[in-house]
Amino acid sequence: MNIEIITIGNELLIGQVVDTNSAWIGQQVGDAGFRVTKKTTVGDVAQDIRDAIDSALSRVSIVLVTGGIGPTKDDITKKTLCDYFNCQLYFSEAVYQHIEDLLHHSGHMMNELNRSQAMVPDHCTIIRNEAGTAPCTWFEREGKVLVSMPGVPYEMKTLMTNEIIPRLKQQFLQDTFIRHVTLSVQGYTESALAERLAKFEEELPPFVTLAYLPQPGMVRLRVSAYETSESQSEQAIEEQKRKLYILLKGHIFSEGTHTLEQVLGRKLEEKKYLVGTAESCTGGYIASRITAWPGSSRHYMGSIVSYSNDIKKQVLGVSAEDLETYGAVSRQVVEQMVTGAIRVLGCDCAVATSGIAGPDGGTQDKPVGTIWIAAAVKDKVITECYHFGKVREQNIIRAFNAAILMLLKML
Amino acid sequence: MNIEIITIGNELLIGQVVDTNSAWIGQQVGDAGFRVTKKTTVGDVAQDIRDAIDSALSRVSIVLVTGGIGPTKDDITKKTLCDYFNCQLYFSEAVYQHIEDLLHHSGHMMNELNRSQAMVPDHCTIIRNEAGTAPCTWFEREGKVLVSMPGVPYEMKTLMTNEIIPRLKQQFLQDTFIRHVTLSVQGYTESALAERLAKFEEELPPFVTLAYLPQPGMVRLRVSAYETSESQSEQAIEEQKRKLYILLKGHIFSEGTHTLEQVLGRKLEEKKYLVGTAESCTGGYIASRITAWPGSSRHYMGSIVSYSNDIKKQVLGVSAEDLETYGAVSRQVVEQMVTGAIRVLGCDCAVATSGIAGPDGGTQDKPVGTIWIAAAVKDKVITECYHFGKVREQNIIRAFNAAILMLLKML
Repeated sequence: MNIEIITIGNELLIGQVVDTNSAWIGQQVGDAGFRVTKKTTVGDVAQDIRDAIDSALSRVSIVLVTGGIGPTKDDITKKTLCDYFNCQLYFSEAVYQHIEDLLHHSGHMMNELNRSQAMVPDHCTIIRNEAGTAPCTWFEREGKVLVSMPGVPYEMKTLMTNEIIPRLKQQFLQDTFIRHVTLSVQGYTESALAERLAKFEEELPPFVTLAYLPQPGMVRLRVSAYETSESQSEQAIEEQKRKLYILLKGHIFSEGTHTLEQVLGRKLEEKKYLVGTAESCTGGYIASRITAWPGSSRHYMGSIVSYSNDIKKQVLGVSAEDLETYGAVSRQVVEQMVTGAIRVLGCDCAVATSGIAGPDGGTQDKPVGTIWIAAAVKDKVITECYHFGKVREQNIIRAFNAAILMLLKML
Repeated sequence: MNIEIITIGNELLIGQVVDTNSAWIGQQVGDAGFRVTKKTTVGDVAQDIRDAIDSALSRVSIVLVTGGIGPTKDDITKKTLCDYFNCQLYFSEAVYQHIEDLLHHSGHMMNELNRSQAMVPDHCTIIRNEAGTAPCTWFEREGKVLVSMPGVPYEMKTLMTNEIIPRLKQQFLQDTFIRHVTLSVQGYTESALAERLAKFEEELPPFVTLAYLPQPGMVRLRVSAYETSESQSEQAIEEQKRKLYILLKGHIFSEGTHTLEQVLGRKLEEKKYLVGTAESCTGGYIASRITAWPGSSRHYMGSIVSYSNDIKKQVLGVSAEDLETYGAVSRQVVEQMVTGAIRVLGCDCAVATSGIAGPDGGTQDKPVGTIWIAAAVKDKVITECYHFGKVREQNIIRAFNAAILMLLKML
């Protein structure tokens, strides 16, 4: 079942905002058994919005629209949708009440613009936006569905997860039972893995698909079965999973869609271990990724983000002499950082990073992308020197993944 | 002069890759005086690519295409373009040589897939891709231009900057000069700001537009002028900017598209101050945002991510008694955290956070979203208690913005 996405907003066209919504939607509806076949971005221009809608509905039965609604630009998209679906705007007491509650909760007053958000189209389903003031609207015509959602990512995500995907599944996918399994694989590049699995892929039955989802330092494999009964789908998944575990022996380190930090968290809880971090080049990114997961407070102690060498010395106890002799980006320093973290943070295990994230700061010996990582469990320490690329952001993410994978191997 | 962007790739539709290219292109061509009016993303499907091209060229004179070329999926896009523009493929010795040099340089061997990349369409301009093996092609028909570029960001950006934008400017010599200014505003919600600026907006001349770009805790205003001479555009921007500074006196804290952390960074460098952070509920997010900017190493010392109370006590020196009496989420504790950070990290100023990010951990007195923040410059400390929402991710981002804004006010 095909879906098209339309994103609305001048800010997307001039590039002030990167559209991350449509990638997220692509993933989520993919997991639910739908397929995104086209994405269109238009500005806050009635004719362009109308053309995009008309054109999308001529090709597919489901169109998901994000953006173009909100207190200051409510008018264009809402009115265009109203015209297109021959609706009239009416004042919704329920929406008004919800907006008032929401504003009241955050200490704001209702104003005219918020009030106008309670004007909603008739002949459509109004879906409550738990996280914001702009209501979500669900239009139907001739068996086709168009859903208009706010562009604010967490509002859209909350709506998609709790309301839109369940409704779409019920309406369009009743006869198909989709099951997925995701396996996280390390030690293979995407193309090496594709080569390893070429025969496996060839032999897959037609109702089973395999997707490669590469991430820095790892590849996720997603196997999906689309069958007419639940048990058949589940059986197909189990069978293919068994084959993959045999083919990729020792390389699969987690099953399910958990993030690396969640896999780590579960492992730590199993062992009743506390973890800490000492970060130089990753600058707090490892800490922020670990703590993005609410469960982390049970096993995460904290981090010493030692961006300056003084902190490495004074807080983590790295030897001034070693810093001088070997430089901050060295095995000696990262080793002392990780043991310092265990001591100072009072934890059972830790990771530490020190490297040149770039774009500047590289030398002949230690070019940009050179990153030393240490992982330690109790008094056992391992270190590794990585040579990543030239892009700062990428280097930080790759260092995070490498560090967590190193620690996972030791646990 | 309007431009449409087409991005090609299944990976974009299933959400495996976030399309950052088109936002970048939007910014660059905008600065050059063009305007992106629509973006379309299609998969690696000949018919879809053809339809997208045909439709875009029916509306605008310039179409920029990225993706869909490269060693493993060279065929579809190239052949579709060849068919569409009635070209034949021929073997280009120059392209072949370039690919061979490039591969040789990085220690790789030429393979069949690379060899086929030297097959290029006739009746078009082949533009050398300095950074990769897939050549860029520039097609013209009836005064309209379509440029096909690789999707690898670094390759596309090099081509756009060095070749495509200069050629487009020359060919479509502008009668319109676009200038933008972005002002960051605090202390207003989006709708309150829109109300404040209602009259200002009404009075804008037709060639000037105003856009609201809300972020947690702040709103960015972008004023754009589309005029027939450079000086007229610049004059129009200056005039509207002056009006906004008067209307929003004291609420505009930065001009330009800098992020909050960059605004802070500039301010710190001006004052020659070093900054540090002590983070509980933000868990390293503030540190990671500050260090995401390469310039940060000049003024950022580091962070004590004191997720556990033990670290608050032992590293930051927070009083055990106060932790017991007032709890970790309190004015007393966040104050001691920020002064501890200045002492331990040896910096001139700092921010500290302690709160309940959620989704669990809330109490009657301190519901989820309650976050204490302290900012300190030398021995002056201010604290503030915020009541954000229920979404963990959002609360962490809002705490970051609030903390940096508090510190900026003090500097």
